[in-house]
Order: sequence, then C-alpha cells, then structure tokens
Amino acid sequence: MIILSDINEAAERLLGHVHTTPILTSKYFNLLSGAELFFKCENFQKTGSFKARGALNSVLNLNATQRKNGVTTHSSGNHGQALAWAAAQQNVKAYIVMPKNSPQVKVDAVKGYGAQIIFCENTLQAREDSLAQVMENTKATFCPPYNYKPTIEGQATCAYEIFEDINELEFLLTPVGGGGLLAGSALSAHYFSPNTQVIGCEPELAKDAFLSFKTGTLQPPLPPVTIADGLRTSLGPINFGYIQNHVSDILLCSEEEIKNTQRLIWQRMKIIVEPSSAVPLACVLKNPKPFVGKKVGIVLSGGNVDI
Amino acid sequence: MIILSDINEAAERLLGHVHTTPILTSKYFNLLSGAELFFKCENFQKTGSFKARGALNSVLNLNATQRKNGVTTHSSGNHGQALAWAAAQQNVKAYIVMPKNSPQVKVDAVKGYGAQIIFCENTLQAREDSLAQVMENTKATFCPPYNYKPTIEGQATCAYEIFEDINELEFLLTPVGGGGLLAGSALSAHYFSPNTQVIGCEPELAKDAFLSFKTGTLQPPLPPVTIADGLRTSLGPINFGYIQNHVSDILLCSEEEIKNTQRLIWQRMKIIVEPSSAVPLACVLKNPKPFVGKKVGIVLSGGNVDI
Repeated sequence: MIILSDINEAAERLLGHVHTTPILTSKYFNLLSGAELFFKCENFQKTGSFKARGALNSVLNLNATQRKNGVTTHSSGNHGQALAWAAAQQNVKAYIVMPKNSPQVKVDAVKGYGAQIIFCENTLQAREDSLAQVMENTKATFCPPYNYKPTIEGQATCAYEIFEDINELEFLLTPVGGGGLLAGSALSAHYFSPNTQVIGCEPELAKDAFLSFKTGTLQPPLPPVTIADGLRTSLGPINFGYIQNHVSDILLCSEEEIKNTQRLIWQRMKIIVEPSSAVPLACVLKNPKPFVGKKVGIVLSGGNVDI
Repeated sequence: MIILSDINEAAERLLGHVHTTPILTSKYFNLLSGAELFFKCENFQKTGSFKARGALNSVLNLNATQRKNGVTTHSSGNHGQALAWAAAQQNVKAYIVMPKNSPQVKVDAVKGYGAQIIFCENTLQAREDSLAQVMENTKATFCPPYNYKPTIEGQATCAYEIFEDINELEFLLTPVGGGGLLAGSALSAHYFSPNTQVIGCEPELAKDAFLSFKTGTLQPPLPPVTIADGLRTSLGPINFGYIQNHVSDILLCSEEEIKNTQRLIWQRMKIIVEPSSAVPLACVLKNPKPFVGKKVGIVLSGGNVDI
C-alpha cells in the first residue's frame, strides 16, 4: 500500500535530481477544446520521459549490498534509458536487456549512460530468460518498469508537482500503458487534490486497461501494434488495484486521432512529443463535452521519437 | 537613430501582447561546446517567431488615420504571418502580398488571422508591383520586414529580455538575414549590456551580411537557396549601419551543419525549431574555441516548419 508519506518522501528524494518540468498552456488548444488545459511537459524530463522519476526512485531505494550488485531490467523503450541514466547518476552498475532489433538511437542512448547491454530475441520469453540469467550471474536487482512500488511512487511525483502549481484542477489525464503513471497520478490526486478526477487515456488498439477497468477483471494485453509504442505493455496488477480505487474513467482514441493530435502539438506548441503523449489530448478533442469550461491537466509523458 | 528610450518604450508597448519567451539550457550542448549556453526560445513566440515583436511594434506606432487604412507587406515567410496577427490584435485591416506558390500552411495561417491575401508571381518585381498596387488602392501603410525603425525596435526587445534574465553574458549570437534581429540585438547590447559581444550567424550560401561586414560595403544578395529559408533575404542598409557599429563579428556555417544542428536540437531539447534557428549553434559547434567557458546567449528565432 502506497501511503501519503511515501509520495512526499519520493518527491523529496528526487528533488534536484530530476527536472521540475514546466507546465505550458496553449490558447489554440483551449479554443479547440473549450477547456482550460495545462500541459505538464515530461518530454523535457531527464532522458526524455517521466520514466526517469520511477527509475531513479527505484535506484535510491536500494540498500548498500544491492547498490554494489547493480540493477537490471528488460526494455525496448524509455524505461531502459531511464534506468541506465538513474544508475549512472548514483554510480551503480546497470545491465539492460534489449531486443536485438531495438532502434540504434535507443541502443546508443543506453550505451551513452555507461550501461551494459545484453541483446536477446524479441519475444517476452527471451527477454525474461535473459533477465533471469543476468540476475543469476550478477545478483543485480530487477527494477521493473511499472508494476513495482518504488516505480509508482516515483511516477506519482509528476502529478504531485502539477498540484503544487495549479489549484483546483478538475481533471487530470494521463496515458495508460503498464499503468505506473496513471496509478501514481491517481494516488497523488487522492492524497493531495481529492477533488481532481483522474482519467486514463488509451489507444483503442491497446485497450486492455479500458477492458480491465470496465469489467473489473485484469484483461490480457492486445497485440502490440499501436503507434503509441510506450503504451503497448499490459496493465500491471498492482497498478490495476490503484486504478480501480482512484481513477474515474478510461477513455479511448483511434490511431488516426493520435497521429493528428501529435502533429498538431508539434505544429502549434513547437515541442516534440512521442505518440503516447498525444493520447490524452486526442481523447479530449474526440469528446470535449465533459471538459468544457474546466481546468484540465494533461501529462505529456515523453518526447523520444526517432527524428 | 534608435536611442535607448526607443527600445525601453518598445518593450513597454509590447509587454503583455507578446510572450516573454523562456530561456532554456541544455547540459548536452554545454558538454558538446564547452560553453554555458542560454537559448532564448522565440519559437514559442506568438506566430512562432520573433517577427511578432517587430510587426506588433509597427502596428502600435501607427497614427489614427493609418490605423483606419490598414497595413500591408509582401512576404512568403514569418513576417507575413506576424503582421497579419499583429493587425488582428489591434483590429487593423491587413493586406498580405504572397507569391502564388507559398506553402498552404502559411497561406492558411495568414487567412486564419483574418488578413486579406493578394497572390502574385514569385519574383521580387511582381511582389513590389503588387504591393504598390495595394498601397495605391487602400492607402494601407507598408510595414517592412526588417529595414524599418519600428521593426528593429521591436526585435530589440528580444535581447532586452535576455539581458534582464542573464547577467554578464559574454556573447549573444543571432541569425542574420535582413538584419533586423541582429541590429536590434546589437543595439540592446550597446545600451543595456555593453560587455556582451554580439555576433551574427549566417549560412555560407547566403553570406551577403558576412561579405558586407568584412568589406565595409553593402553587398548584393546571393541566390536564395539555403535551407534556412528565413535568411534568404538581403541585408537592409539601415540594419547594416547598426551592424557595422555594434556587431563584433559574423560567422558562417554550411548547409550540412545547419541540418545536423537542427536535428540535434529537436532530438536533445525536444523543441521544434526552423533551420534558421539552428545557424548560431551550428557556428558555435563548428568553431567552439572562443566560447569555451563563456556565457553565450543564442536566439532560437522561430519554429515554423512544415511538419
């Protein structure tokens, strides 16, 4: 159970190590939606996504023996970079298991932080086998990308910062993939801004969180085909519990809507966001009615795209 | 002659009408260059470029009769959008002469601000003829893009804001096309931060400002072929005077260096900048020695690219 002081402590622990990212507004998107929108720019976060928060909080939670043995995870995306970065900040060794076909830019980023990369086939089985092998050989601690208490506490600090800056936010929307950011945001709202309704936003092609939320039973993941590559993962059971208790709704949008909204954000706000970041705004623009005249926070979760 | 109080007054006039744009830093580019860099983000400015400053200052300088008759310019770029926007803010009619083959996105932006577009052939002669026709028909006031006192005063407010925020800046680098931004920046430094050396940065393929500066005689423009489309214009004679008196140097970079630097800015800073904006940083990275260990301001002049 994550309690109020866990999030307070995570926020203190991370202060000065991660960016307190800016909150931008856009007259254009306010006009388009009828809402008053506040964009939390985690694309400007260290390593280019909110994942730096959870990864660093995980590393800072290690005991002395664990620090000596290092950390490990498997990742083809932002969490691998984030953990490699977090470990480097703390002079801890990192072993990152990556699929052989990972984009060169992500491989270079992980290498750039001094982590050791272990390549494997691109199946979940191969990734888990390689991870188990690394853990056996090195005694490194596995730092999971979302279904893990220190990760969720770290991600919770993003919404915590929003509530420090913006009073009386009526809604807070985040993308949902594995659910770490959504669960953390919902917990922060629960403790620090209880009148804010937290809503998860998901691509229709990856709607396992939507189906889980509506049926009350954790659903298996769908094929990883959405353009929003950060949201292809399946919802974690720990996060699902928090989401059931503290999230108001989960909204869906199409691939076309994600692409159009991403382009509009680039064009109008002059910032680079990855497709996953466009999902909440795409959901607002698809169905603006509940948000008209309301103060709505939107987490732009990351900016890692191949340019 | 632009005096200190002209710039002070322009800054007061524009306050609250244009954005006081943020100044970003980047650990990555500091490491790459050895300098301490401060990026003034005019890509986040109203209409997506610093041109909003000069255009609005020009409109705010009109007398009552001029306001009634409206404003006009010819432009295939940022100044046209900026003047259309500035006029709309002040309920003044705008007539924008644009070449027939202008990108649809720019045509739409100008139309979006409610300006009337007059299409012409894409030659300087046709543009000037159309402009003369508009002025005769409407009595609208011509608001030139750079070689014009109110424009230069408006552009000067960008550096003015930098000096308000960053003390003891040793260098300030801006792109140079027509020279309004460079002349305005140099004047602001002269009056408000006299120890700051102002340097113009120009593509090798458009080095008329460089040649003019080195020879002491205004040189004709080169063919408009550089990818930095904002810098294809020829240096204005009024600006050239200020540049001769108050600019320390003009540096050059290649097309390849502009493209690489633009991509790096997108990738590392997660912001959209147009090619012209990348020119100063490209010049620093090409020739970092004079800047090592120094505080260097860089104007990211705009973010209008077709996405």
